Amino acid sequence: MKKDFFNVLSVQEFIQKLHSFTPLQANTVSIEKVDGCVLATDIIAEEDLPLASRSCMDGYAINASNIFGASEANPAYLESVGDIDIEKPASFTLQDGECAGIVTGGILPDGADAVVMVEHTESLGAGTIEIRKSLAPYENVMLKGEDATTGKPALTAGTRIRPQEVGMLAALGIQEIPVYSSPRVGIISTGDELIPIDEKPVVGQVRDVNSYTLAACARRAGATATTYGLVEDKLDSLKEALENALAENDVVFLSGGSSVGVRDLTVGAIEQIEGAELINHGVAISPGKPLILAKCGNKAIWGLPGQIASAQVVMFVLGMPFLRYLSGDTNAFDQSRWPSKQAELSRNVASKPGREDYVRVTVTEKDGKNIAIPVLGKSGLLKTMLQADGVARINADSEGIYEGTVVDVLFF
Amino acid sequence: MKKDFFNVLSVQEFIQKLHSFTPLQANTVSIEKVDGCVLATDIIAEEDLPLASRSCMDGYAINASNIFGASEANPAYLESVGDIDIEKPASFTLQDGECAGIVTGGILPDGADAVVMVEHTESLGAGTIEIRKSLAPYENVMLKGEDATTGKPALTAGTRIRPQEVGMLAALGIQEIPVYSSPRVGIISTGDELIPIDEKPVVGQVRDVNSYTLAACARRAGATATTYGLVEDKLDSLKEALENALAENDVVFLSGGSSVGVRDLTVGAIEQIEGAELINHGVAISPGKPLILAKCGNKAIWGLPGQIASAQVVMFVLGMPFLRYLSGDTNAFDQSRWPSKQAELSRNVASKPGREDYVRVTVTEKDGKNIAIPVLGKSGLLKTMLQADGVARINADSEGIYEGTVVDVLFF
Repeated sequence: MKKDFFNVLSVQEFIQKLHSFTPLQANTVSIEKVDGCVLATDIIAEEDLPLASRSCMDGYAINASNIFGASEANPAYLESVGDIDIEKPASFTLQDGECAGIVTGGILPDGADAVVMVEHTESLGAGTIEIRKSLAPYENVMLKGEDATTGKPALTAGTRIRPQEVGMLAALGIQEIPVYSSPRVGIISTGDELIPIDEKPVVGQVRDVNSYTLAACARRAGATATTYGLVEDKLDSLKEALENALAENDVVFLSGGSSVGVRDLTVGAIEQIEGAELINHGVAISPGKPLILAKCGNKAIWGLPGQIASAQVVMFVLGMPFLRYLSGDTNAFDQSRWPSKQAELSRNVASKPGREDYVRVTVTEKDGKNIAIPVLGKSGLLKTMLQADGVARINADSEGIYEGTVVDVLFF
Repeated sequence: MKKDFFNVLSVQEFIQKLHSFTPLQANTVSIEKVDGCVLATDIIAEEDLPLASRSCMDGYAINASNIFGASEANPAYLESVGDIDIEKPASFTLQDGECAGIVTGGILPDGADAVVMVEHTESLGAGTIEIRKSLAPYENVMLKGEDATTGKPALTAGTRIRPQEVGMLAALGIQEIPVYSSPRVGIISTGDELIPIDEKPVVGQVRDVNSYTLAACARRAGATATTYGLVEDKLDSLKEALENALAENDVVFLSGGSSVGVRDLTVGAIEQIEGAELINHGVAISPGKPLILAKCGNKAIWGLPGQIASAQVVMFVLGMPFLRYLSGDTNAFDQSRWPSKQAELSRNVASKPGREDYVRVTVTEKDGKNIAIPVLGKSGLLKTMLQADGVARINADSEGIYEGTVVDVLFF
């Protein structure tokens, strides 16, 4: 065991190390389950969307040049040659001086290039339509191919799929979608004072909180999570548990007792696993500094602190983004894209320069302003996490933040 | 059919109508799947958490009164009577003048009420410990019952469960959790120009985008979604499809062609369903004004616009919050709690007073500021939704927002 392997990286340096892992391989996912996944390849349109130019309004299809200059004071008059059925393209071609009734979604007939809204027209009888507005070509028209063009990418690789992207896939008739795989995550807890949650603790024992909390975090990041239960604080047991979890997963999170001894044990167990390489031990982040990272092929082992608040904050700030990164999200670590709210800090908060502090806060509204109130209390308690709405970051180059400063509260 | 039943409610009035539905009944969900659910009852602790007072630090357990006034210049000297095992409470009681070695998480022995950090001590040999700091009672100690007290609620009904609440449930050994049920949602599309997504469209036909997009939205709101496919634009077919979907679900979303005729058909079909009552037709929201709401017992029928952008914005602003409300979230409609980001509007945006406008925007960073750029384009296209990061609300009492105004962008 190398007790001296403690090399505190900055958060940015640590994230660089995480980028030495590559996103997972692609597989296909059905359209019903694809929301939230990241596209592994471009999606090429096999036909134009829309297939033909369609009206955005109820009104009359016209050729814009026929009504240039038309106004309330100087209306144009066109002859209506019929109404266009929404299901079928018109059987006729518009000639100069002609128009045709059209509803929203209706296909523009040949010869038409714009649609005048019914509000700007009046039917004078005998097929004559008065038009009191001029239009530019293509006005109120969804052009053929405007949403997607045959043979061109309609969605590009790396796009995280939302309901609207699901809609585009449906529009193109694509039911099996190539996406990056979701990470399979294994979770292990160690600490001899821990007992399974279905047992009754006696004084000195604590139920295994981390397995369940970290599994919930992993699932929120889109991963599948398997808990491997509690493992004894012994080198052989830890090594065996890590090997098992590593065989079945892409990432293993081990949260271990808070003492230096347990952390040394984790490092020792990792060093005994064939092909495993210790990447780092120590990150300049509070809470969470004694974080361990190891690599075994493209699989990752994380040694998280045992204190629940520390373990969860590290998971939120680095672990969950890493899982998203593995599933193809190139912006996974960009905190400016996370759900957040700006709020004024209610009091001064001190911080040690050289480390990123994540201060748990609650957010309340006062006099129309959002106020972030730091949650004080011992970080071994669950309470501080339950009370917090999220965390505010104090950058590594800062000694703290003054009361009244506007901070981004990252919600968890 | 009542063509004249079109009564435009304000968004607030509409939300009041939605509150006439009651949240779904409770059921129990296993701890592995409970994240995101809302507690239906208080969770009462069956034992104290922590079970006994525990140390937050590595150091020495002491009685604070023994070292009052201790400092660098004036240290106190105590006799160490041993080290406390993390798994077991100490077998001894601290007497005046005594201390005991303790690690983080260790149980305080009787007679101790605080822990001095190892950094503020020095072992002088022969069991004598020099202590260079005074402490208040309970300093560096997690008190027995501080996280949860036997017989008292540890979590209260109405709490939406996050990973940290999962942790509290694990800590209490609660594996089956009483939560409000997730809504079962049925989704129907109508419009004779629509075809199933596995068919190839000809000019005039469009694949069924709404079923898939709306199902993804419903699932994001924690619901289970069943799609019932395409239904003919006919009264009998619509009525039958609605009845089927209603029998199997708590909420039915029907998205229908964009023409007034189809909406009238929806209203007509609803009126023919036994026990169904039309609540409203028309909400002062853009896009989405022709929204239909009906009630059948505690089940809801929503008639959404057929235009995909309108349907999705209504789903986002009202439908998804309604599903969360049904699953017990009392703050479901409070937009200030949604993932959002503040950004400066890049240009003036006009709006009709009397309606809430939801303007699709992209958010980019420029000179360290977030800029919200309205997405222009025809709302019948998917493109505008694909480009948008979210929506900015223009309140009903406003005629628009000027360039440079800071808006909340609600992410979708």
